[in-house]
Amino acid sequence: MSVGNGYSPPTEERPAVAVDVVIFSLFENDLHVLLIKRKTPPFQGLWAIPGGFMNLDESLDEAAARKLAEETGVTEVYTEQLYTFGSVARDPRSRVVSVAYFALVPFSSISHQPGEFEEATAWHSLKTLPQLAFDHSEILEYALQRLRYKLEYTAVGFQLLPDQFTLSQLQRAYEIVLDEKLDKRNFRRKILAAGVIEETGRRTSEGEGRPAMLYRYKDDSVTEVKTRRLFP
Amino acid sequence: MSVGNGYSPPTEERPAVAVDVVIFSLFENDLHVLLIKRKTPPFQGLWAIPGGFMNLDESLDEAAARKLAEETGVTEVYTEQLYTFGSVARDPRSRVVSVAYFALVPFSSISHQPGEFEEATAWHSLKTLPQLAFDHSEILEYALQRLRYKLEYTAVGFQLLPDQFTLSQLQRAYEIVLDEKLDKRNFRRKILAAGVIEETGRRTSEGEGRPAMLYRYKDDSVTEVKTRRLFP
Repeated sequence: MSVGNGYSPPTEERPAVAVDVVIFSLFENDLHVLLIKRKTPPFQGLWAIPGGFMNLDESLDEAAARKLAEETGVTEVYTEQLYTFGSVARDPRSRVVSVAYFALVPFSSISHQPGEFEEATAWHSLKTLPQLAFDHSEILEYALQRLRYKLEYTAVGFQLLPDQFTLSQLQRAYEIVLDEKLDKRNFRRKILAAGVIEETGRRTSEGEGRPAMLYRYKDDSVTEVKTRRLFP
Repeated sequence: MSVGNGYSPPTEERPAVAVDVVIFSLFENDLHVLLIKRKTPPFQGLWAIPGGFMNLDESLDEAAARKLAEETGVTEVYTEQLYTFGSVARDPRSRVVSVAYFALVPFSSISHQPGEFEEATAWHSLKTLPQLAFDHSEILEYALQRLRYKLEYTAVGFQLLPDQFTLSQLQRAYEIVLDEKLDKRNFRRKILAAGVIEETGRRTSEGEGRPAMLYRYKDDSVTEVKTRRLFP
């Protein structure tokens, strides 16, 4: 058997490489994640983050995009590599290194096709998560942490919103993801000062109270809003 | 040949998984990275980021720690997973997925043992980098970006400093890594307000001007200094 000498790529004794894609969407006043019920061992019957093995002729990013398209039917959404999980015993079948991604999918663009190999595909509220297979609770926790961080430091949160939204809807989206009530005046002041949204000139036509201005995300604004901080 | 069905781990057609460790150190008024000159193809004679293939009985973190110890002789330093590079053709020999790490090593703790397979191991100033093998320029650029970001938003920068330092030395370290002159008053105000350093009670004994207070990093301060921002 030819294993590696530590310098040339080993020809045997290689791990399998998987991608797992944490797919978030915001609807029904709650942050949801797409999960798949496993119909074969290991962890048969448990829910898992959608994922699969990378093909040798595709990049990691392509593998993640393929899994996302297979599970949700969407192709052009915000996707970002999260972290690579590589503990020795994370899969009882074989040594598997998993490169985790997260994707933010506007709810309106989702089709609910179950994947080829899965018994069921379903959205789960982050508040009522079932037990997850493998180390997927850890991966999901990591993804949620990254999403919250990104929401506060960048403009990617808009990927979860419809094209046009009121400031109240925007604040509500932030509150749902951060799981925390935000001060209205402070929130509006900061968001408007950031210069990443603009008025559409249109207002909501119905609902309680007077019509509210509809805003949209400015396409030309930077996704990564970075200011010199020197922590604090 | 048994390749994967997309659901079970493939038994053949697996990529090799490597770890590459970007090792930074600060000395001689410059940020340095440890590089290894390749003595075999591909890219023979070019410099590369130290790395190697993961063994099946070690985790990714363990593989990174092993490579770090082999190349520098140090074991207990700040190490963080950066990003996983997985384009199809990044290694001409075989499909190789590389999980990149970065490590911050205080210069005093380094031994200069060249690794077993390498012709030469040497520190290179970021200002005078040679051409690098594989996609290692991209990996290094990513690592530098992460280091700069971390320096501004967290306290990991102290991992590059000696145990005790003056505020001038601290500012100089920041200026070197950020490659930018910082305002002295503003820097001191922010660093002291962050509450991550404390006076040692001792002062420098020599040098120009009057003795300066020596500070140390507060061990109990959080590494990740996080405040609610809601970008901006």
